[in-house]
Amino acid sequence: MTNSARRMQNIAPFYVMKLLARAKDLEAQGKHIVHMEIGEPDFKTPQPIVDAGIDALKKGLTHYTPALGLPVLREAISTFYRQSYEASVSSNSVVITPGASGALQLICGSLINPGEEVLMTDPGYPCNRHFVQLVEGVPRFINLDESNDYSVSLSDIKSSWNDKTKAILLASPSNPTGRIIDIETLDKIAEFVKSKNGYLILDEIYLGLTYGKKYPSLAGRHSNVFIINSFSKYFSMTGWRLGWMVAPDEFITDIEKLAQNIFLAPTTSSQYAALTAFDPQSISIMESYREAFEERRDYLYTSLNDIGFKIKNKPEGAFYLYANSEKFGDNSFDISNDLLEKVGVAVTPGIDFGAFNAESHLRFAYTVEMSELEEGISRLKKYCH
Amino acid sequence: MTNSARRMQNIAPFYVMKLLARAKDLEAQGKHIVHMEIGEPDFKTPQPIVDAGIDALKKGLTHYTPALGLPVLREAISTFYRQSYEASVSSNSVVITPGASGALQLICGSLINPGEEVLMTDPGYPCNRHFVQLVEGVPRFINLDESNDYSVSLSDIKSSWNDKTKAILLASPSNPTGRIIDIETLDKIAEFVKSKNGYLILDEIYLGLTYGKKYPSLAGRHSNVFIINSFSKYFSMTGWRLGWMVAPDEFITDIEKLAQNIFLAPTTSSQYAALTAFDPQSISIMESYREAFEERRDYLYTSLNDIGFKIKNKPEGAFYLYANSEKFGDNSFDISNDLLEKVGVAVTPGIDFGAFNAESHLRFAYTVEMSELEEGISRLKKYCH
Repeated sequence: MTNSARRMQNIAPFYVMKLLARAKDLEAQGKHIVHMEIGEPDFKTPQPIVDAGIDALKKGLTHYTPALGLPVLREAISTFYRQSYEASVSSNSVVITPGASGALQLICGSLINPGEEVLMTDPGYPCNRHFVQLVEGVPRFINLDESNDYSVSLSDIKSSWNDKTKAILLASPSNPTGRIIDIETLDKIAEFVKSKNGYLILDEIYLGLTYGKKYPSLAGRHSNVFIINSFSKYFSMTGWRLGWMVAPDEFITDIEKLAQNIFLAPTTSSQYAALTAFDPQSISIMESYREAFEERRDYLYTSLNDIGFKIKNKPEGAFYLYANSEKFGDNSFDISNDLLEKVGVAVTPGIDFGAFNAESHLRFAYTVEMSELEEGISRLKKYCH
Repeated sequence: MTNSARRMQNIAPFYVMKLLARAKDLEAQGKHIVHMEIGEPDFKTPQPIVDAGIDALKKGLTHYTPALGLPVLREAISTFYRQSYEASVSSNSVVITPGASGALQLICGSLINPGEEVLMTDPGYPCNRHFVQLVEGVPRFINLDESNDYSVSLSDIKSSWNDKTKAILLASPSNPTGRIIDIETLDKIAEFVKSKNGYLILDEIYLGLTYGKKYPSLAGRHSNVFIINSFSKYFSMTGWRLGWMVAPDEFITDIEKLAQNIFLAPTTSSQYAALTAFDPQSISIMESYREAFEERRDYLYTSLNDIGFKIKNKPEGAFYLYANSEKFGDNSFDISNDLLEKVGVAVTPGIDFGAFNAESHLRFAYTVEMSELEEGISRLKKYCH
């Protein structure tokens, strides 16, 4: 690919896509595959949200909105933070984006100069480093493993920060580990980063998708924090391509300029639909989804550990289990492939989330219903014995 | 804005946004404004397309699609080229994008290295240079004016091409001038660019929105051409945020990788809706829109020239007239402002489209109904006498 931009060589494909293509082949041959690789809720978008989307289309609301999104939706998100998270966020700080991906682009574009570094975790969401590389920034990794329960600490960050570091990008709850960074630690990280004139970019797209107890948002607590969120996960609105961010005031003008230029605006009907996402009827549906996820997590956590996929502590959020698979081989892609070919179970190899210990980990998503998970576990048992 | 990335200083705001904000103030005060500044069709999305969008939502089609778009939509676009433009385009070369903006991002991201230059016209679509700058490429301009009927020539391009040039980005029909580059010239440009191992990026988002005769597409004719198109203009689907490109085969793998990472996928319901955009019922509605645009163009072209806004030749496409306004002052922003304040007519100043002769030009959009245009002309007459 000699004519492509050099950055393309640093952008890894998703290895899971190869597995997915093979899974489709097998399905086309009539084989049943248990899908535990998909980072997307299996649930339908709650009906009140769908109905609002339909209503918007019926009303002909199909023209552009302002680049930062419908003012009334920005206001609704501000209210959501106040009512559900006791967080004070001005609607002027809320930016509606084409998915959390759009937020990551706007942040990297308006914040990162060529050669400046952004700290992030390994393992982590695979696209993060590519958003940084797209604008010629440099991702730097903090390695996480079982010994620290896959959790980043302030001292990790302090020892990794250098003169070229402009920001740190963290996620809580995290993909692929499901770990949460407690709010006290996040506060300290934000303060340390501020002392370095840097920025904390916090991915909260799994906010609300937590189990056992509800965790706070960092929104509204620091002047040097970008909060990223999305309607895709908790709200089960993936295909609507809608997210938001809470940005520091000093960046809103630049972000608006950049959004006008590179996006024009997020999808209009999705924005009108999202206006109903915070209604009690929608929330109660999403809470029932959350309860189903919790039940699946509990089942899968116990079952995978029983089989020998090692997950030390039960993760508190998201819909993934990041399991040590070294008992079954030293190449996570080969194991994934083997699982697919031999017992028809699709999982994501660790190498999709970074390099550190990636060969000895697999990510299991619990985004299929319980009966499928049970079938998957029965097949994994067969594979392992 | 000392903490922003340096590139933000090179990203100009849209000056027309200031005028729009002021126009809204005046409207809030009860004043009627004639809007001739808006680059968006006033027409509704054709009902068959809206109905298909509603149907998709009713069916619960709200999950992610593949990153390159629904295969059946890529196939429909391939068929559209064959049936409507006698162009042979494989569906494998068609990439569905979140608007033409998404296509520009994917092209710049996968093609342009830092410091490499992209030729484009001045005047031109203002965002073009920013897509290039976002990935640290360098936009270079070919100036167009009345003397060459705002049309780019092969010799312009030959004399502007240098060792750092990676690509040329052209539009036909063009925003803001409405000019068309004839297919023979485009063929020659593509061949010259190929001889330089470069690429032609051709914005055809106003394809179909032409008057008098139908113009061909360059799609399928050259191996080093990226064609950009959109459902926003001819199809009146702005708020659906959906476009497409036809990319050289050698880039499809990289573009897919980049699209997976920075977009995941375009909005799902918009893609299902667009499946009906090529149906005869939809086309006949869009053709009626096109006829209305043509009537407006004819009226506005004659009327503006009568008043003294000079437009030499009648443009053949898009929905804009780019008029010389030097009779009324030497600062296009001041004139725009004056028109808004004194007679309540909103137009876009030339400075939104570049620097060359930008102070002596205004762009008039005919995206409001005829009665509004007539009111606008009557007010402009009052202003000018």
